[in-house]
Amino acid sequence: MLPSDSIERVVELFASLPTIGKKTARRLAFYMLRQPSEQIDHFARALVEMRTNVRECSVCHTFTDTDMCGICSSQKRDVSLICVVEQPSDVMAIERTGDFRGRYHVLHGALSPLDGVGPEDIRLRELIARLGQEVQEVILALNPNVEGEVTTQYIAKMASPLGVSLTRIARGVPMGSDLEFADDATLARAFVGRVPV
Amino acid sequence: MLPSDSIERVVELFASLPTIGKKTARRLAFYMLRQPSEQIDHFARALVEMRTNVRECSVCHTFTDTDMCGICSSQKRDVSLICVVEQPSDVMAIERTGDFRGRYHVLHGALSPLDGVGPEDIRLRELIARLGQEVQEVILALNPNVEGEVTTQYIAKMASPLGVSLTRIARGVPMGSDLEFADDATLARAFVGRVPV
Repeated sequence: MLPSDSIERVVELFASLPTIGKKTARRLAFYMLRQPSEQIDHFARALVEMRTNVRECSVCHTFTDTDMCGICSSQKRDVSLICVVEQPSDVMAIERTGDFRGRYHVLHGALSPLDGVGPEDIRLRELIARLGQEVQEVILALNPNVEGEVTTQYIAKMASPLGVSLTRIARGVPMGSDLEFADDATLARAFVGRVPV
Repeated sequence: MLPSDSIERVVELFASLPTIGKKTARRLAFYMLRQPSEQIDHFARALVEMRTNVRECSVCHTFTDTDMCGICSSQKRDVSLICVVEQPSDVMAIERTGDFRGRYHVLHGALSPLDGVGPEDIRLRELIARLGQEVQEVILALNPNVEGEVTTQYIAKMASPLGVSLTRIARGVPMGSDLEFADDATLARAFVGRVPV
C-alpha cells in the first residue's frame, strides 16, 4: 500500500530516466519533498523553459536559446574549420577541452541502415550546403562504432568532389564507448592526432 | 562556451540532487530534450502537484494526498499496534515487506541535541497523545544510530507510566546505514526478532 499517489508518480517518472533506479528515484522524490515549494517551482519551470526555449542553431544545428548559437556568431572562431559531431552534447564535450577554435556541425544522429536511419534523417544535406569556399577542413568527430564509420564513408564520398580536406579525430577515443563520456585529455589528444580519411 | 543557458540551468539543478553528478546531470538534460514537450510538461506538473498535494496524515503524520492516509483509514489494520519511524520513506520501506499489519507514527526526525533537534521539533507529543486504551504495543523502528538510540530512551521514559508494551526491531538492520535502504528480507526479520526496550 502506498501512502501517496503524487509521490509514487514522481518516483515512476524519475525511475524512467536513464541511470536512475527505483531506490534512487524514491530518494530523489523524498529529497524534493523536503525542499521549499519555490525550489520545486523553479525546477519545474526550468524544465519547461528548456524544452520551450531550446532550438537548433540555424547554422550548425546544435542546441541553442537563440537563432544562432554563441559559437557560430562569435568572431573569434575559425570559419575555415568545421567539426562534425553526432549530438549537441558532443559539442559541449569538445568545448570543455578548450583546444578546438573552429565551428561545428551537428548531424543529430548517424547513419544506421539497420535502424532505418538514412541520409535524409540526419543533417547531412545541411553539412554539404556549408562546404563553400570558406571551409578548408572538415574534422569528423563521430562516435567510434559502426554507425560512425558508415557516416564517415558517406560524408567522404559526398565531400570528395568539393576539394575540401577531410580528416577524422584519432582513435585515441576508447572503442565501443560514447564520445560524450570521453575524458577531456583523451578527447584533446584525439584532435591533435587526427588523420586523413 | 556553453551553447544554451536553458540547458545549463537544468544541468545545474539535476546536479544539485543527491547521488547525481555533473556527467549524469548532463545526460539527463539531453535525454529530456529528446522527449516530446508533453512528457516534459507532465514531469514538471507531477513535481509541482506532489509538492502541492502532499501533506501529513492527521493521525500518523506520514505523507499523504488526503487528510488521513490509506493505512490509517483502512479497516484491515490492527489499531492496537503502532510502529514508530523517523521518516515517511521508512513507512514505504516497511510496507514493502508486507509483514506489518498495524499502523504507523512518523516522527519526522530523531532527537539530536548536538544539531539542536529537541522533543518539540519532532512529532513526539502527537505520539504520546495516541497511546490510549486501544494501543497495546508500540514497536520502535528507528535508524540504528546515536539519534535513534536517544529517541528510543526518551520515548521509553515518556511511555512507561502509560502501561503500553514498548519494543524495538531487532538489530538485524546493519549498523550505520539508513533504514530506508535496508533490503526487504532483513527488514522483515528485524520485525520478527523485536526485543523489549
